[in-house]
Amino acid sequence: MSVLVVGTLALDDIETPSEKAEHVLGGSSTYIALAARLLTAPVGIVAVVGGDFPDKYRQLLQSSDLDLTGLETLENQDTFAWGGRYRTNMNIRDTTFTHLNALAEFNPLVPDTYVDSNVICLGNLPPKTQSDTLDQVSDKVFSACDTMNYWIENMREELDGVLSRIDCLLINDEEARQITGEDNLYAAGRQVLALGPKILIIKKGEHGAILFIEEQVFIVPSFPLKEVRDPTGAGDVFLGAFAGSLSNESVIGLDALKRAVVYGSTVASFCVENLGPYELAELTNADIRERSKLFRGVTEWPALHEHL
Amino acid sequence: MSVLVVGTLALDDIETPSEKAEHVLGGSSTYIALAARLLTAPVGIVAVVGGDFPDKYRQLLQSSDLDLTGLETLENQDTFAWGGRYRTNMNIRDTTFTHLNALAEFNPLVPDTYVDSNVICLGNLPPKTQSDTLDQVSDKVFSACDTMNYWIENMREELDGVLSRIDCLLINDEEARQITGEDNLYAAGRQVLALGPKILIIKKGEHGAILFIEEQVFIVPSFPLKEVRDPTGAGDVFLGAFAGSLSNESVIGLDALKRAVVYGSTVASFCVENLGPYELAELTNADIRERSKLFRGVTEWPALHEHL
Repeated sequence: MSVLVVGTLALDDIETPSEKAEHVLGGSSTYIALAARLLTAPVGIVAVVGGDFPDKYRQLLQSSDLDLTGLETLENQDTFAWGGRYRTNMNIRDTTFTHLNALAEFNPLVPDTYVDSNVICLGNLPPKTQSDTLDQVSDKVFSACDTMNYWIENMREELDGVLSRIDCLLINDEEARQITGEDNLYAAGRQVLALGPKILIIKKGEHGAILFIEEQVFIVPSFPLKEVRDPTGAGDVFLGAFAGSLSNESVIGLDALKRAVVYGSTVASFCVENLGPYELAELTNADIRERSKLFRGVTEWPALHEHL
Repeated sequence: MSVLVVGTLALDDIETPSEKAEHVLGGSSTYIALAARLLTAPVGIVAVVGGDFPDKYRQLLQSSDLDLTGLETLENQDTFAWGGRYRTNMNIRDTTFTHLNALAEFNPLVPDTYVDSNVICLGNLPPKTQSDTLDQVSDKVFSACDTMNYWIENMREELDGVLSRIDCLLINDEEARQITGEDNLYAAGRQVLALGPKILIIKKGEHGAILFIEEQVFIVPSFPLKEVRDPTGAGDVFLGAFAGSLSNESVIGLDALKRAVVYGSTVASFCVENLGPYELAELTNADIRERSKLFRGVTEWPALHEHL
């Protein structure tokens, strides 16, 4: 397996200032895997759904060339369901409901065929679940991990255990500040690295992302968009494309990580252009190539003044 | 004159969470000119001070090779005075006092020797004052202009008059949203260009800056700093270095503008490292060269995947 994705599959109710949709295919593993498969193959999912999980969604994942050997179905349960409502500027999201359902009994079981993956993506899950999953794969697998404010606040010890053993943590700016108590993101970044991860990505939404490794940083803006329709899943898509890009690399050094951050940001820009993951599933290599070229054009520096 | 700076000279009282200082040399023209002179020469100031303006500050400006022919002194008045207090995260500033003093009678008079400058920087002043100043220089002078929330709210008609005749507007993200009523900065940017300026720079503080010209954009992040001690003047410094860089160009095309934005961001990063403009006045070409090289290193993309 190139990329092994462990996370949630969900049915989302999403409300933005201009749109509203129910039972949208969602969950971290959906977005992570649909992004990763744009950069690499094969991509496998370890997740759980209930008996109500629509066939059309299973087919969408399958026809996107995702390996579903690790997908468990609990027939007597419902699928994890989540509702979110975005306020006018799209930067503030209220969770309207969270029904764990089948997810409450999720104990990820990594299929034998996935154990030697190049990269494992640990979507936002309880730190204990993330640790149990890491126990099942080879130490050689590159681990890229997400988390959220709830675990930072309530399961800090377990989370620190995860941080001490992963290769890369991907979090947003508020989570970086929450973990460290430090407002300046560059100071916060150094403190997070001191907790264990070899690599840190801080995602800043419309303001881009920062890569930290040892004493180096790399800054990538977000691709310029005149309209953002639905930010749901953008962070997961970043993680998936990042992992997919890394799985192609023979050596994971600074340039490989920079490339992965560029692809993370590029693919995330497609995600926010539409509600749900459906357009993401339609994307091709050519779309990624074209946008990353445009993206380079808006960030590339000219030569500077020679007299300076 | 390479760069003509029209703005305020002030005595600032500044309070940050860790520092406090009174009667600091301040004002938009101080920061703009001290930044511009790092990129070009000569740089001249048109401004007004009162009889209390300290000789040591006049000497600091003179020893920084600034031309003070256009500096008017009203002996019976006090110098414009401003007080600001930054809250913990440095992003929110409360104005503690504003005493216009000599500034209340400021009618900029551009000396004959400045009339054919390469670039004119119009610091944050009443739109009417900006217009009156533009009337005094050749149409060939490239005009770069600042403004603020107060004029946007209270003197919109006069401000629109200024926008219709300048080459470049430099404002922050909140001002761009206020002018257009549009939350998305890329949509707001297009709307601002429709008001007249050929070029727009939106400054986003720690998140960098965006250049807009015709259908093109260029995005530069802010230089990574682990500590920001005093943001006062950073926007003015951006404007000054931007103008200084442009004044060296034979053609002001896209590459010239990108370069100017890079220098604006680079020199602004020095400004926020210390309270007041004193360290800015000590900087040399070599400091700018070294930092812009480091800065390029944290933004430059590697080659992307060939198989995509």
